[in-house]
Amino acid sequence: MSEETTKQRILRVAGELFAAKGYAATGVAELCEAANIGKGALYHHIKSKEDLLYQISKRHVEEPLEVAEALIDMELPADEKLRRLSRYQMKTIADHLPEITVYFRDGHHLDGEYRTKLEGLRARWERVWAVVLRQGVDQGIFRSADPISVKGLLGIFNYSWVWLDPDGLLPHEEIADQLADIALWGQLVNTRDRAVPASKATSPAPVALSLSP
Amino acid sequence: MSEETTKQRILRVAGELFAAKGYAATGVAELCEAANIGKGALYHHIKSKEDLLYQISKRHVEEPLEVAEALIDMELPADEKLRRLSRYQMKTIADHLPEITVYFRDGHHLDGEYRTKLEGLRARWERVWAVVLRQGVDQGIFRSADPISVKGLLGIFNYSWVWLDPDGLLPHEEIADQLADIALWGQLVNTRDRAVPASKATSPAPVALSLSP
Repeated sequence: MSEETTKQRILRVAGELFAAKGYAATGVAELCEAANIGKGALYHHIKSKEDLLYQISKRHVEEPLEVAEALIDMELPADEKLRRLSRYQMKTIADHLPEITVYFRDGHHLDGEYRTKLEGLRARWERVWAVVLRQGVDQGIFRSADPISVKGLLGIFNYSWVWLDPDGLLPHEEIADQLADIALWGQLVNTRDRAVPASKATSPAPVALSLSP
Repeated sequence: MSEETTKQRILRVAGELFAAKGYAATGVAELCEAANIGKGALYHHIKSKEDLLYQISKRHVEEPLEVAEALIDMELPADEKLRRLSRYQMKTIADHLPEITVYFRDGHHLDGEYRTKLEGLRARWERVWAVVLRQGVDQGIFRSADPISVKGLLGIFNYSWVWLDPDGLLPHEEIADQLADIALWGQLVNTRDRAVPASKATSPAPVALSLSP
């Protein structure tokens, strides 16, 4: 078994344990037993328990983040970008629920440099959303790119680590599309027949229409 | 100092400690010191650390939940009910952020009867949203009351324990209204000029219009 494989096993087993019991409640001895590795060998692969928490938290976040960041410069209408972000995000959460649970729930146990790095990852995700919303506003198809809109929309997707069942009947692609519909369309039907609140009224922008698929 | 006041102090201090350090990482000795109380006296007020976690988690959830449940039978259009739910939820989170943090983040440490009770509270919140969405669909003003819509919309508000700053410049009432706008209107402007996805097309319902404010 190669060294890389051992490290991957440590990360997977630790991710599952942290997700099930919580980071603080998981002891190193318990982790060694679950990963079938001695304490000395464990510390050959990781610097500390905190380092392990950081490795697990960032493990499945960096890659989709790079994919998401690449979306920014693509020639696509912002609503299509939002739909793709939804797909990336829900696939990540569905495929790596234990690690994503640790990322969202246990990240507060990180201090110093690790904390700064984790917050950097979160800020990069948020920035992608903020930029795509801003592009949508500039295209005349989105209402707002203010920070509350960014946080509110992120919540639709990020909160799913609490309820998503990766083995459930509904494929994560379909869940992603339904959540994107909520983000794009909201709950109201027949908005043409309803008064638009003053803060939401925006004049039509031809650019937007030409960009629409 | 009355017994009730001592218990309230224990709950407040423990809520702050658990929110800052996490439930599992907070020791009873540390808690006694922070609350300025002996261990014997502490256990006069609480049954166990787990009992304390449960008390903190439910403390500021039950009351707004009862207010929210009372909304169900009111003669109001569903969009107004959604706006009020947003106000209740954001006020609760803003006023009691430490306890709400513990409720959302550390609830998984509860077992047995405590776990069942906490999940009961979560189910009741979710039921209020599901019923209000269903009422909106029946009134012809909402698109969907399916479980994904319920979870997606809840995420807009529930995820705010991660980012809300109760001492921030924006009052929680205003944040609540902006988040409600996201839930109701979504990000798209000029929906009259955009194709409605097949799954979202709904014919106008006169009932809805007469109910609109």
